Amino acid sequence: METVKIAQIAACEGREVELRGWLYNKRSSGKLHFLQLRDGTGVIQCVVFRDDVPPEIFSRCDHLGQESSLKVQGLVRREARSPIGFELSVRGVEVVQDALGYPISPKEHGIAFLMEQRHLWLRSSRPHAVLKVRAEVLKACRDFMEQGGFTPVDAPIFTPAACEGTTNLFETDYFDQKAYLTQSGQLYMEAAAMAFGKAYCLGPTFRAEKSKTRRHLTEFWMIEPEMAFCELAEDMDVAEGLVFYIVRRILERCQAELAVLERDLTPLQKVAVPFPRISYDEAVGLLREKGSDIEWGQDLGGDDETLLSAGYDAPVLVHRYPAAVKAFYMKGDPQDSRLALCVDMLAPEGYGEIVGGGQREDQLEVLEQKIDAHGLPREAFAWYLDLRRYGSVPHAGFGMGIERVVAWLCGLHHVRETIPFPRTMQHLYP
Amino acid sequence: METVKIAQIAACEGREVELRGWLYNKRSSGKLHFLQLRDGTGVIQCVVFRDDVPPEIFSRCDHLGQESSLKVQGLVRREARSPIGFELSVRGVEVVQDALGYPISPKEHGIAFLMEQRHLWLRSSRPHAVLKVRAEVLKACRDFMEQGGFTPVDAPIFTPAACEGTTNLFETDYFDQKAYLTQSGQLYMEAAAMAFGKAYCLGPTFRAEKSKTRRHLTEFWMIEPEMAFCELAEDMDVAEGLVFYIVRRILERCQAELAVLERDLTPLQKVAVPFPRISYDEAVGLLREKGSDIEWGQDLGGDDETLLSAGYDAPVLVHRYPAAVKAFYMKGDPQDSRLALCVDMLAPEGYGEIVGGGQREDQLEVLEQKIDAHGLPREAFAWYLDLRRYGSVPHAGFGMGIERVVAWLCGLHHVRETIPFPRTMQHLYP
Repeated sequence: METVKIAQIAACEGREVELRGWLYNKRSSGKLHFLQLRDGTGVIQCVVFRDDVPPEIFSRCDHLGQESSLKVQGLVRREARSPIGFELSVRGVEVVQDALGYPISPKEHGIAFLMEQRHLWLRSSRPHAVLKVRAEVLKACRDFMEQGGFTPVDAPIFTPAACEGTTNLFETDYFDQKAYLTQSGQLYMEAAAMAFGKAYCLGPTFRAEKSKTRRHLTEFWMIEPEMAFCELAEDMDVAEGLVFYIVRRILERCQAELAVLERDLTPLQKVAVPFPRISYDEAVGLLREKGSDIEWGQDLGGDDETLLSAGYDAPVLVHRYPAAVKAFYMKGDPQDSRLALCVDMLAPEGYGEIVGGGQREDQLEVLEQKIDAHGLPREAFAWYLDLRRYGSVPHAGFGMGIERVVAWLCGLHHVRETIPFPRTMQHLYP
Repeated sequence: METVKIAQIAACEGREVELRGWLYNKRSSGKLHFLQLRDGTGVIQCVVFRDDVPPEIFSRCDHLGQESSLKVQGLVRREARSPIGFELSVRGVEVVQDALGYPISPKEHGIAFLMEQRHLWLRSSRPHAVLKVRAEVLKACRDFMEQGGFTPVDAPIFTPAACEGTTNLFETDYFDQKAYLTQSGQLYMEAAAMAFGKAYCLGPTFRAEKSKTRRHLTEFWMIEPEMAFCELAEDMDVAEGLVFYIVRRILERCQAELAVLERDLTPLQKVAVPFPRISYDEAVGLLREKGSDIEWGQDLGGDDETLLSAGYDAPVLVHRYPAAVKAFYMKGDPQDSRLALCVDMLAPEGYGEIVGGGQREDQLEVLEQKIDAHGLPREAFAWYLDLRRYGSVPHAGFGMGIERVVAWLCGLHHVRETIPFPRTMQHLYP
C-alpha cells in the first residue's frame, strides 16, 4: 500500500493509503474512535469504526497515549467538515510505540515548563507554525539577496578581536590564544563587498549580555548585507526593500501559520513603501512632544522606540544618530560632524529595532583615529584598515535580526519562541 | 549616465555607461592604456586612447596602482577577442582612491602569505571562483531539501553537553555554567524530525581537534538532514540523491568558475547514480587485496579511504561499520550485533569522507545502556531520551561537510580555500 504525507492527501481521494505519524489528540464515542494524526506536514482525522477493524485493534485504540507513533491504513474520503477537507476511514492501525504520560497535554501550560520541554513542544501547532514562518523569512531573505545580485559569503564565528570591547563577548581558549564568538559579520562583509561588489552573510551571532528582556537572546541569527559604492540613502532603500519583501512573502505564503497564531493581519497588510524616514533630530523632537524626557545626544531606549513607532503603520527609518552613541566604524556626516551616517529601522507595534546599519568610514586616517579614540588595539584591525589602503570606496550595509522580525510578523511577545532551541541567560537546555 | 555592472554589459552595447570597480591589472603602450577593471560581477578591459580623454586623465592612468578604486565612463563595444565579448572605449576616469603597494601582485605567492592576506586575496580570480562554487553548493543543498519536503530547523550552537566527550570541544563560560560549541546538530535534528517529519540544519559546527591535515578546519559548515520513519537504505538514497544533485548543479551553473580553477571536468562528468554501496566487511576485504594492512574492527584511515575510492568513478557508500568505532547513538544491526546501521560516503579522487550518517537507536533501554557504556552523563541526555519515550520511530539522517564537497568539486588540495575566512589550528586571523 502506498505511503503518503498528509499534505498530499487531496491527491489521494478514494484510494487506500498508509499514513505514518503521531497521535496528536483523540476522542471516542462508543463505536467510534477519532484519532487526530499528525505527520509533520499536517493533521488529519482518522475515523476508526468498530465494525471496520479487528476487535483487538479497536480496543487498543482505547488506550493509546498522546504522541504514540502509528502507521494507519485507510480510505481517503472527502469530508466537508474537516479543516483540510479530507479524513481517513481506518482499515488498520499499527502501533509503532505507545507513548505513556506525554508531558504536554492539550491543556494550557506555563511558558517556563514549555521552554524546558522545547524538544517536544516543537510538535505542537503553535511552535510548528512559528518555525514555518521563520523558515519562510530566511528563504525570503536569501531570495531577495540573490535577486539583488548579492553573493553569500559566510562570516567566521571565531574572531581574534572585539569590535566594541570584550564585555559582551563569549570567549574561548583557541589552542594557545583567546578567541571570541562573533557579534557581527560586518567587518568581514566589508572585505567581501570589495571582492564581490555586494555580499551578505546569514548565520548565528552571539552576545553575552546580561539582559533578560523579551528582545534578547545570547545566540541569534542575523542577515548582514554590505555594498561597495553605496551611500546611506541607497542603504536605506535596500533595507526597506528587504523588509517589505519579507512582509509580502509571509502574507502570501504563511496564511495558515498566521491563522494558527491568531495573528491580526491588518497591521501587516497596512505596511506599504516607502517607509517613513526621519532624522534622529526629528525623532527627538517628536518623542519630546509625546512626553518622553529624552535629551538630544542620548540613544533611543526601548520605550522611546515603541513610542516613536506607534505613530506609523510601516517600519520607520531613523537616521543620523549622534556619532557618540554608535560604533567606531560609522562614517561621520559631512553636513554635521556630531552625527553618524547611520540608520536604525524600528518595527511597528512596539517590536523595536529590527535593522541597524549605515555607511562605513572609508578614510584610512579617520578610521585610525577612531580606533585609537575607542581604545581598540590597532594591530587587531590591521586587516580591516587594509580595506581603506587598497581601493577604498564609499560603502554601506546593515544587519537585520531574524528573530525580531519573526516575532513581529507572528505577533509574539518574546523572541525566544522564534528560534528552534533558544539560548538566553537562563536557558542552555535542551 | 547610467551605472551598470560588468555582468550586464552585453545588454549595454553601443551605449555610454559608467562602471565602478577596482583596477585588476594594467598594461600601457604609448597612446593606449588597457585597464582591466573588476567590479565583483566580472572583469572588463577598458581601453583608454590618448586622444579620447583629457591629458591629465591619460597621464594619471600611467601611475595607477593595482586595486585602485575607479569610476570609468565609456562606450560599450563588441570585441571578439574579449573573454566576455565586450570592452569599454573610455571617455572618462575618476579615481576614487589610488592604491599604492597592493601586496598581492599578479606574480605567484606562497599559500602562507596569501592566507594572511585572505581579506584581500578574496578579490583574486581563484578564491572568487571557489567561493562562487561554495555559494552554489549551499544553494543546491537548500533547493534539494526543499524539493524533498524537509523543513529547515536551525540547530543551536551552544550546547550543554558533549555527544562524544569534551576532548575535541571548544568550551566557553556561559554565565555561571559551562557551554560547548556544537560539533553536530544531529541530536537536535532528531527532535525536529519528530516534529516536522523531515528536517535539516545547515550551519557552522566546531571541532577543537589538534589536526593539521588538509581535510580539517576548526570551524566548518555541515548540512544535517534527519528523517522520521526512515531506515538505513532510504538514508543512503537521500545522501546519494543530494550529492548527485550538487554535482549536476555545479556542472550546469559553474562552468566559468571551474574553468578558472582549471578543474578537469571528466571525473565529475563520470559521476552517475546509483553510487556503489559496499559493506564494511567487503571494504576490508578489498583494502587487504589492494595491500592495506587494515584489520577487521579498525576504522578506515585516510589512506584506506583514498585507496578504496580509487576503485570507483562515483562516491562510494560504505555501510555497517563495527559499532565500536562509531558513536553511541547508532542503531545496532539486527543481522549482526557487532555492526552499526551506519554509512560513510567517500568522494572520488582521494577526497575522503564527505558524508557520515546512519539509522539512530530508537529503543529507550538500549540507548540508556549505550550512554552508560560510553560514560556519558544521562541527565544531559534526558531530553534526547524523551524522544524514545514519546512516539519513538525508526529514524535516520546524515551530515555532509560543505567544505570537503567544495574542495572535491573544485579539485583543491586543502579545504582551507573553500571557506571565506578559514579557521585552523594556526589561523584565527584575519
